[in-house]
Amino acid sequence: MAELDAANLMKQAVGKAAADRVKSNTIVGLGTGSTTAYALEFIGDRLKKGELENVVGIPTSFQAEVLARKYGIPLTTLDVVDRIDIAIDGADEVDPQKNLIKGGGAAHTREKIVDALAETFLVVVDSGKLVDKLGSTFLLPVEVIPMALTPVMRALAKLGGKPELRMGIKKAGPIVTDQGNLVIDVKFDAIADPAELEKTINNLPGVLENGLFVGVADVILVGEIIDGQPTVREF
Amino acid sequence: MAELDAANLMKQAVGKAAADRVKSNTIVGLGTGSTTAYALEFIGDRLKKGELENVVGIPTSFQAEVLARKYGIPLTTLDVVDRIDIAIDGADEVDPQKNLIKGGGAAHTREKIVDALAETFLVVVDSGKLVDKLGSTFLLPVEVIPMALTPVMRALAKLGGKPELRMGIKKAGPIVTDQGNLVIDVKFDAIADPAELEKTINNLPGVLENGLFVGVADVILVGEIIDGQPTVREF
Amino acid sequence: MAELDAANLMKQAVGKAAADRVKSNTIVGLGTGSTTAYALEFIGDRLKKGELENVVGIPTSFQAEVLARKYGIPLTTLDVVDRIDIAIDGADEVDPQKNLIKGGGAAHTREKIVDALAETFLVVVDSGKLVDKLGSTFLLPVEVIPMALTPVMRALAKLGGKPELRMGIKKAGPIVTDQGNLVIDVKFDAIADPAELEKTINNLPGVLENGLFVGVADVILVGEIIDGQPTVREF
Amino acid sequence: MAELDAANLMKQAVGKAAADRVKSNTIVGLGTGSTTAYALEFIGDRLKKGELENVVGIPTSFQAEVLARKYGIPLTTLDVVDRIDIAIDGADEVDPQKNLIKGGGAAHTREKIVDALAETFLVVVDSGKLVDKLGSTFLLPVEVIPMALTPVMRALAKLGGKPELRMGIKKAGPIVTDQGNLVIDVKFDAIADPAELEKTINNLPGVLENGLFVGVADVILVGEIIDGQPTVREF
Repeated sequence: MAELDAANLMKQAVGKAAADRVKSNTIVGLGTGSTTAYALEFIGDRLKKGELENVVGIPTSFQAEVLARKYGIPLTTLDVVDRIDIAIDGADEVDPQKNLIKGGGAAHTREKIVDALAETFLVVVDSGKLVDKLGSTFLLPVEVIPMALTPVMRALAKLGGKPELRMGIKKAGPIVTDQGNLVIDVKFDAIADPAELEKTINNLPGVLENGLFVGVADVILVGEIIDGQPTVREF
Repeated sequence: MAELDAANLMKQAVGKAAADRVKSNTIVGLGTGSTTAYALEFIGDRLKKGELENVVGIPTSFQAEVLARKYGIPLTTLDVVDRIDIAIDGADEVDPQKNLIKGGGAAHTREKIVDALAETFLVVVDSGKLVDKLGSTFLLPVEVIPMALTPVMRALAKLGGKPELRMGIKKAGPIVTDQGNLVIDVKFDAIADPAELEKTINNLPGVLENGLFVGVADVILVGEIIDGQPTVREF
Repeated sequence: MAELDAANLMKQAVGKAAADRVKSNTIVGLGTGSTTAYALEFIGDRLKKGELENVVGIPTSFQAEVLARKYGIPLTTLDVVDRIDIAIDGADEVDPQKNLIKGGGAAHTREKIVDALAETFLVVVDSGKLVDKLGSTFLLPVEVIPMALTPVMRALAKLGGKPELRMGIKKAGPIVTDQGNLVIDVKFDAIADPAELEKTINNLPGVLENGLFVGVADVILVGEIIDGQPTVREF
Repeated sequence: MAELDAANLMKQAVGKAAADRVKSNTIVGLGTGSTTAYALEFIGDRLKKGELENVVGIPTSFQAEVLARKYGIPLTTLDVVDRIDIAIDGADEVDPQKNLIKGGGAAHTREKIVDALAETFLVVVDSGKLVDKLGSTFLLPVEVIPMALTPVMRALAKLGGKPELRMGIKKAGPIVTDQGNLVIDVKFDAIADPAELEKTINNLPGVLENGLFVGVADVILVGEIIDGQPTVREF
């Protein structure tokens, strides 16, 4: 890494702080995104130096899988473990109660499966992701099976959202998730009760998972640039 | 239909009673199963005789689609209609509050999408499907994405169920649904609060849909054999 | 359409020429892409004016389906027709023998299913798509099931190609097709025998379909700008 | 294994003979089916006894994965190996040239991906699977994406076959494969040129893979009962 701009230096600092929380003899959920990518790199460094031993990763996405191989983190699957000790993953919005919106990369279903199983779910973000109310700046992603697209969009509008289908780039038609489904991005002006909305949307027939992660995150590591220097604080 | 045994005569009677409820100029959800198959046949008969006009069907399954074509019922999709007037479908268990367990044919996700949209959801069953408590005689089917199989089975066991993966016949390994997912059949001794359990299971990460249909059914047509004669009653 | 630049005027002219070839009482395969989109618009116009009657479309993609509904072209499916009279679709490369490379939009599997069934397959392109040898300017897209990604990439390299996985935008990890598969884009310096390469790649275990369309196209409509004017010629 | 009938004793003998061919420090493709299941059990035994070391398996199916875990065979994936040394798998028909029909369990796509990569592909069958001409006793399975079902069935009929859609048991509608596709079973009276037919069918738009394995098998282990005793011969 020759030169990094301030934003990347900050992501790197947060990733390093997260990697420092990983202990030997643990199973680690490996998240998706650019800050998490730094965390994976630093976990790999610590394994190489012998600072860490016997760490096994469970990837939340194809990206995490590729990076884990690159950085020498052994992988396993949910079928052979009975717990996840810590998961490290990013978020698109974080509210003061540590509730999240995720799904900008359309990977939130697999992420929620892994993150929700972790004893400790460590979220890595920059300060721009902190919001007072979820839904203020980011659309809520909802994964839906293709057949249910139209009725689910109508149901989401009835819940007060402005839904739109996420369209593909370098692919005609809509984005398709790793499960073969579509993603509806929903504008809510502000989400009053995230716990209730999460359950209500997941109960819509044809919805697989939505991007609300309520009561899942345990620790938030926030990167900021203060006086031109990258800093990391926890809340 | 040359000769039919008593059970089939009863299914036929229920199917006919359901077909008689369909009106002209309506959009009809077409369910799955042997009793519903008779309903589709009788709807086709009424269209041919001119008793019914301008009826369009929305199939819940491949089976319904094939039968609709066979019996001359024009088809459309959820993307082009703004309502469903009536849906006709079977069930594996029906409780006194008209709550259902469905999913013996692994088609409950598509069925719930269609049935839940219908202005009137008409359930056609024989009297053997009536139970005091859901879960008494039938396992609860839960559709889950493959990656989440093991954690969802553990979560279902924590909810008090005895889960087992539904295995295939004429297919190595498990049954795969029309969406590419797996089915876990869960034994609950009796389901105390179906509405709560439906939401709780749908909120498990990786679960697409479960076989509980709570507050969806409007009319139940029940076939019985009384004094050797097929009869149909409504509740 | 208020103002159109020269490129769009040319696409519009080609789309119009294609729409003019459609006859009443036919089943029409509806392709994907910006030039084809104009063809669909003009077919819709001709239906509205009454110039055309009883035209039914079979979409090759989600995009075609949405546009057909917008322009009032009734749709059907491959399960209910016994032929396709004409298909209109774009291409990424066209050689002098009317062989094509398609798949820039990752829709080539569904496009080949429809286009190959058509009595007449009409290709609409601008002159920039004409090449002497396939593979000169465009990568060859190969759709592969996820499990076979690595061995298929190796097999394609052995065939002389430089394969790379097509990555997603607005989606973490790779592009996923409408069938839930991945796309490998392969650089071949020039494809000596397209017919043989098409079969060889389709015979690789795990490959669903590749972007070579050999012996499928019947008519090529080519748009060009000559003296600042959009023109259309056939070859 | 308390008591086994003659057929199972024979399968067990063939499975043991196959397991005896596995060497230390190899990557082994793990097939599907009842005879292969015995091979996996005996590989596990040899690993436990220390007769074999450093054997890693690549499963062809969910069944193989579950059995490998049960018998203590470590697993890996195609993404992290650069070769497969030996694959052990069953077959539904074997001709004198060691060409096969597979796919009775709808797993032939994943099986072909693994088996075709193996340095040595070892087929385990009982003598009832030996035929003079492929297609004599077993239908040829063809995996097809749902959208292409009808045109592919027509194309198969034009090739001289009698195609039928494989229907599900404990699942309404057709069998769905692990890739989310359908299976067409095709009756050919006898297949004159398996190599040509394999390529021709794989080149049909919408076909993923068919059950013909031509030039893939290296060694056939055949179980027979002679004078009431299970015997194994190689050809």
